[in-house]
Amino acid sequence: MEKLTGALVFAQSGGPTSVINSSACGVFETALKQGEITRVLGAHHGIKGVLNDDLFDIGQESKEELALLKTTPSSALGSVRYKLADPAVDDTDYRRILEVFKKHNVRYFLYNGGNDSMDTCYKVGKFLTENNYPCRVIGVPKTIDNDLEFTDHCPGFASAAKYIATSCMELTLDGKVYDKGSILIVEIMGRHAGWLTAASYVATAKGLGPDLIYVPERNFDVDRFVEEVKRVYAETGNCFVAISEGIHDENGKFISDYAKVVEDKKDMFNHAQLGGACAYLANIVKAKTGAKVRAIEFSLLQRCAAHCGSSTDVEEAYLAGKSAVLAAVEGKSGVMMAFKRSVVDGKYVCSIDEVDLSRVANYEKKLPDEYITAEGNNITPAFLDYVLPLIKGESRPPFVDGVPRFANLKKVKAD
Amino acid sequence: MEKLTGALVFAQSGGPTSVINSSACGVFETALKQGEITRVLGAHHGIKGVLNDDLFDIGQESKEELALLKTTPSSALGSVRYKLADPAVDDTDYRRILEVFKKHNVRYFLYNGGNDSMDTCYKVGKFLTENNYPCRVIGVPKTIDNDLEFTDHCPGFASAAKYIATSCMELTLDGKVYDKGSILIVEIMGRHAGWLTAASYVATAKGLGPDLIYVPERNFDVDRFVEEVKRVYAETGNCFVAISEGIHDENGKFISDYAKVVEDKKDMFNHAQLGGACAYLANIVKAKTGAKVRAIEFSLLQRCAAHCGSSTDVEEAYLAGKSAVLAAVEGKSGVMMAFKRSVVDGKYVCSIDEVDLSRVANYEKKLPDEYITAEGNNITPAFLDYVLPLIKGESRPPFVDGVPRFANLKKVKAD
Repeated sequence: MEKLTGALVFAQSGGPTSVINSSACGVFETALKQGEITRVLGAHHGIKGVLNDDLFDIGQESKEELALLKTTPSSALGSVRYKLADPAVDDTDYRRILEVFKKHNVRYFLYNGGNDSMDTCYKVGKFLTENNYPCRVIGVPKTIDNDLEFTDHCPGFASAAKYIATSCMELTLDGKVYDKGSILIVEIMGRHAGWLTAASYVATAKGLGPDLIYVPERNFDVDRFVEEVKRVYAETGNCFVAISEGIHDENGKFISDYAKVVEDKKDMFNHAQLGGACAYLANIVKAKTGAKVRAIEFSLLQRCAAHCGSSTDVEEAYLAGKSAVLAAVEGKSGVMMAFKRSVVDGKYVCSIDEVDLSRVANYEKKLPDEYITAEGNNITPAFLDYVLPLIKGESRPPFVDGVPRFANLKKVKAD
Repeated sequence: MEKLTGALVFAQSGGPTSVINSSACGVFETALKQGEITRVLGAHHGIKGVLNDDLFDIGQESKEELALLKTTPSSALGSVRYKLADPAVDDTDYRRILEVFKKHNVRYFLYNGGNDSMDTCYKVGKFLTENNYPCRVIGVPKTIDNDLEFTDHCPGFASAAKYIATSCMELTLDGKVYDKGSILIVEIMGRHAGWLTAASYVATAKGLGPDLIYVPERNFDVDRFVEEVKRVYAETGNCFVAISEGIHDENGKFISDYAKVVEDKKDMFNHAQLGGACAYLANIVKAKTGAKVRAIEFSLLQRCAAHCGSSTDVEEAYLAGKSAVLAAVEGKSGVMMAFKRSVVDGKYVCSIDEVDLSRVANYEKKLPDEYITAEGNNITPAFLDYVLPLIKGESRPPFVDGVPRFANLKKVKAD
């Protein structure tokens, strides 16, 4: 393998998670030690930071702040939602990337993100190869949605899952406190896949979770839902429901879009951004039952709650970043770091796998049938075998003055 | 002081908190060791448990489960919202309480709650005295609202404050991640007092909190609010706002009631219970700015997040319960346990004070003027001196299988 000497650019993309910075920490701490890597750069707002030549010199940061990244949520470098064009149609962006890479002698490009980001990563790598510019391109996975194919799970999922399961247990204790019952509906992220919503079942398995769980892998019927809630409420005096934000009817129309239609009728404001599947259903359930009904959206809280992180997730996210650097230095390119699960002496072991970026880009992994009950209104115990090892161990940032001490980078612009 | 021998009844009332069971733990562990206390009983659903002779024999619980109460949120015995009548008008309930107390030879009655509960406690104590039934009645404070007079602070407040400050910091990191700015409005509990909303300022003081904070101690003007949000958004590209659920206009009308009117116009469902001040304001801000706007209600999450508790709060709540038992055994009655703050060698010290129940009942302590900025749209640094010692130290339950292990009482009915 030929030694490749030059700078490394790391960029963060897509929705933030509790551990995307853990991967950054793994990348930075490892890259700063490699002789071949002359400089470690961080792109401001993902691929846009490359396009704008807006890069931070990570070598200027203190070791202490870089170490704090491991338990700092969100994307310290700034993220972006920007889709590169098909280079066959318009290669302007690609030529600009090449230009910036040449300017800084970038020979390592690591991109951290979900489905769309792996697509970006794949296209950039392909363009650079076709233009005979030696640069090793590696994808580092992340997404709370856990919907990337060819990896057992995704960094970020488990910490969100742990927060959701924990919060559901706490809400169950809170919700059943009065002598008069109530109905609680919580809305959990996941537009197309029910992985995160399924995590609420961990609470159920402990006797302190939702009675009914609805995921986007099944069509959602409002009338049937109301009947199921009524039945549980009549039987137990309470009802706790978890729904995915992405539940939809048999025609694929999101329930949250029904909420929007109702709001639009007022001709006043546009609720489009304000979620709403759970508030919409809560109103229906209230009208049909007369019960005390409450709707809670976990919203952004579930993807940034580093104070309730899974240490397994944090360590694995770090490992994904670290492995990406080592793989690149070893000559690998055009691959995404993936997780492979094995069981050794009855214990969960996670090892690093590599998967071609051409394969992973733009596939969405759904919750398998075996994890959803026949009625489609709950999760099966089989899911526990999958998820429990991932949420094991408690991670939180150091606390100062009673609140978290998060990383605070200087962000010195690379000249 | 005459020795009084008999059973002790402990009851929990009002909205749950993260630490109301910490006080229960302090009461139970202490009471079970007192020779004068022949039996320790827990009332099922507060005063209703007494009225219904629905009492649990706490002596039947294992020491391990009782110890777990210290980090278990909500009210393990069940809570209630029930207001006793004025005994001069209708003493039915009081006579029933006396009857049940006589049946079980109850000589110690400890009631854990907020303003209304202290009123209940006071009335019961007065009635028993007037009927020459020797029984020592002690109030144990709790309320996340922190609005009880004659105590420096209330058990439950600090843990909710810590969760709010922590979550605001995490949301700030998450919310500023994209190159395109956004506006975030969070709604925090507090119908009449802004203590909890003020806690978001701890995040602000760390550079990761709301830009604007609105509390019910000041009248809220929607137009001025929109202008202030627009100004911050124009200046910084983002805007993070924290509001109390209880913000109201100059006539005292809650902003959430305006939301209700809008919803009612649809003649479809009744939104009454679904909060709404923050969703209502988010819609207005969105219409007026065209910005990306998000509304998040901390809702029940903020009062049951024992996974992010203040260990100072947990220990003080325990102390309040323990001290109540000891005070009762020493002959005290008709008092509430209160917290007195002092500073010794520059360090915060909390000691137990006693205040007559006749004084404390039904007063509401507001956020003092010195903690609110002149513009009425933020909190002052002076508040930090008050709140930081309270949120110090991190408490969480033991975790098993990646999720909290909460107390699970057998709840054996007392014969």
